[in-house]
Amino acid sequence: MLDITPLRFEDDRLFILDQTKLPNEELEIELKTAEDVWDAIKKLKVRGAPAIGVCAAYGLYVSVLDVWEIDTESFINLVRETADYINSSRPTAVNLSWALKRMVKRVEDAAAAYPGLKVKDVREIMLKEAQAIHEEDVAACMAMGEYGLELLKPGMGILTHCNAGTIATSKYGTCLAPLHLGQERGYGFKVFCDETRPLLQGARLTAWELVKNGVDTTLICDNMASIVMKNGWIDAVVVGCDRMAANGDGANKIGTSGVAILAHEYGIPFYMFVPTSTIDLNTPTGDDIPIELRHGEEIYEMWYEKPMAPTKVKTYNPSFDVTDHKYISAVITEKGIVRPPYDINLKKLFEQE
Amino acid sequence: MLDITPLRFEDDRLFILDQTKLPNEELEIELKTAEDVWDAIKKLKVRGAPAIGVCAAYGLYVSVLDVWEIDTESFINLVRETADYINSSRPTAVNLSWALKRMVKRVEDAAAAYPGLKVKDVREIMLKEAQAIHEEDVAACMAMGEYGLELLKPGMGILTHCNAGTIATSKYGTCLAPLHLGQERGYGFKVFCDETRPLLQGARLTAWELVKNGVDTTLICDNMASIVMKNGWIDAVVVGCDRMAANGDGANKIGTSGVAILAHEYGIPFYMFVPTSTIDLNTPTGDDIPIELRHGEEIYEMWYEKPMAPTKVKTYNPSFDVTDHKYISAVITEKGIVRPPYDINLKKLFEQE
Repeated sequence: MLDITPLRFEDDRLFILDQTKLPNEELEIELKTAEDVWDAIKKLKVRGAPAIGVCAAYGLYVSVLDVWEIDTESFINLVRETADYINSSRPTAVNLSWALKRMVKRVEDAAAAYPGLKVKDVREIMLKEAQAIHEEDVAACMAMGEYGLELLKPGMGILTHCNAGTIATSKYGTCLAPLHLGQERGYGFKVFCDETRPLLQGARLTAWELVKNGVDTTLICDNMASIVMKNGWIDAVVVGCDRMAANGDGANKIGTSGVAILAHEYGIPFYMFVPTSTIDLNTPTGDDIPIELRHGEEIYEMWYEKPMAPTKVKTYNPSFDVTDHKYISAVITEKGIVRPPYDINLKKLFEQE
Repeated sequence: MLDITPLRFEDDRLFILDQTKLPNEELEIELKTAEDVWDAIKKLKVRGAPAIGVCAAYGLYVSVLDVWEIDTESFINLVRETADYINSSRPTAVNLSWALKRMVKRVEDAAAAYPGLKVKDVREIMLKEAQAIHEEDVAACMAMGEYGLELLKPGMGILTHCNAGTIATSKYGTCLAPLHLGQERGYGFKVFCDETRPLLQGARLTAWELVKNGVDTTLICDNMASIVMKNGWIDAVVVGCDRMAANGDGANKIGTSGVAILAHEYGIPFYMFVPTSTIDLNTPTGDDIPIELRHGEEIYEMWYEKPMAPTKVKTYNPSFDVTDHKYISAVITEKGIVRPPYDINLKKLFEQE
């Protein structure tokens, strides 16, 4: 059984696994205040869109836990302000604002429906909503894991990039969900993980969580994806997604598009795991997805004792790239597997609701 | 003008630029003894097949410089033993054994032809042979640079991987030769260099020598090659080669084959710079080229203050991969440009001699 708890909520207390300490230390820290939550999200102690959403929801609840001597309207104002503050920690994270807006809206709707609402009631509503967000995320990951397993056979060699795993969600992850579920069912996958430069999420996080769950895991540098495919060791590629356009173009961690092209060239299926919350039908194609640029020094200074390049060199350090839909064999969502043509079939997925 | 001297021989003294100190320190060290030469090659203070060959030739000469009270036959035996010792520093480096064998053979041939040869004469023969090896390497690099420039236009964006540059040779390098020559002639290339994990030759060495020569240079992580090509920033890819088979399959630094496939997919020409000494017509295809594996800890321990992956993880750390000839647009040698079909045209190159 998968024995990793990225986030734990017990007796009104919120604990997270500090991901900046991995893989060398498994440190659980408690988040008590809005500042704690802001700091944890800002400094990537908690990361991964779904995990950030769940953490923010519980975090909003615990941040206002000690406030009692206040009327309901003032309390709701405080909830709003606190949500805005927490949301400022990573402004571009879609799930963060989504979860906080959902919490605030639930409270506002309740206040509008029940004028006699007390602070105690608001608190209870918030707790239930945070728990619902949490449970829905676990269920979505489980569903993606089950659908993913339909595409994989026992003993397969599988390549993954970055970390769309347990610790990026509430449990199991998105693209790593079938690997963790497969492990519980004795599938015996042989997983290769790209180290994923420059932030090394593959080495630090994916390798850590797979090894911890007993999965047969081999770490490679990003530039070794071609040779492991050529060696015949890879039967499928699984990756996550940060935003998918209406035509099926998917933005994900930098390097994903290169892996997809290699898989295409070597005739290996390439599967992108995309919660429906990540599909944006208002974005026509990948060209319309803005690509976040990070500081270039990250490439040659971060992690190292001294600079590993001449400091006068120019850099280009995009966080994401867009994988063209023509290289994506299937899109796995919590509602099912979507096949091309994506411009038609992604839309159908939402029409089913 | 290119102002980098990877190796300097003056007044019977041999100096090299210690490449392990780059890019943070430009330290020239003198090699006085066979042990110095062995250590410099073993520890990659000097690296790159042509540079190792030249260093070994001069190194053999200086190693026996203080030996006088000895008869000619004993001196030649000492030269042979010293050559064997230096050759043991990196047994798989083809140019190392090639240069040392050439030095020893030249001495042996002279001794056979002139029975009265004195130690002083042997020494002079060795010096001239080492200088010849050096001059031939400079000329070969210049020639590859000129041929390479025929394929490139001013202002082009050019991607390179690893370091087949000035400091891997006597001057100019192989695939970097046209970029350095182009810089002297105002071509205004915009060069992107892959950092080249795990040993970071691109970041530490290529970026350093290009920036030092004033070339417009942008450092990227290996997994960013796809996005810079997609952005339309790359007009050509230039790489070196460690061994080319008779059918044109070329082994080079790990990651090269992936870059070649991406270039092919994006319709960008991919040029491999291959001194004829690197073409092995006795190796039928790339499948017959053995791939050196290095210690896996290099991936997650080298350079870092602490391990960047769980130390229980398995690793795969090949030094090279083979680029299939179908992805190579042209092979640039010191004797001219070779186009497909390589199985026929590489052979012709040698028949011309």
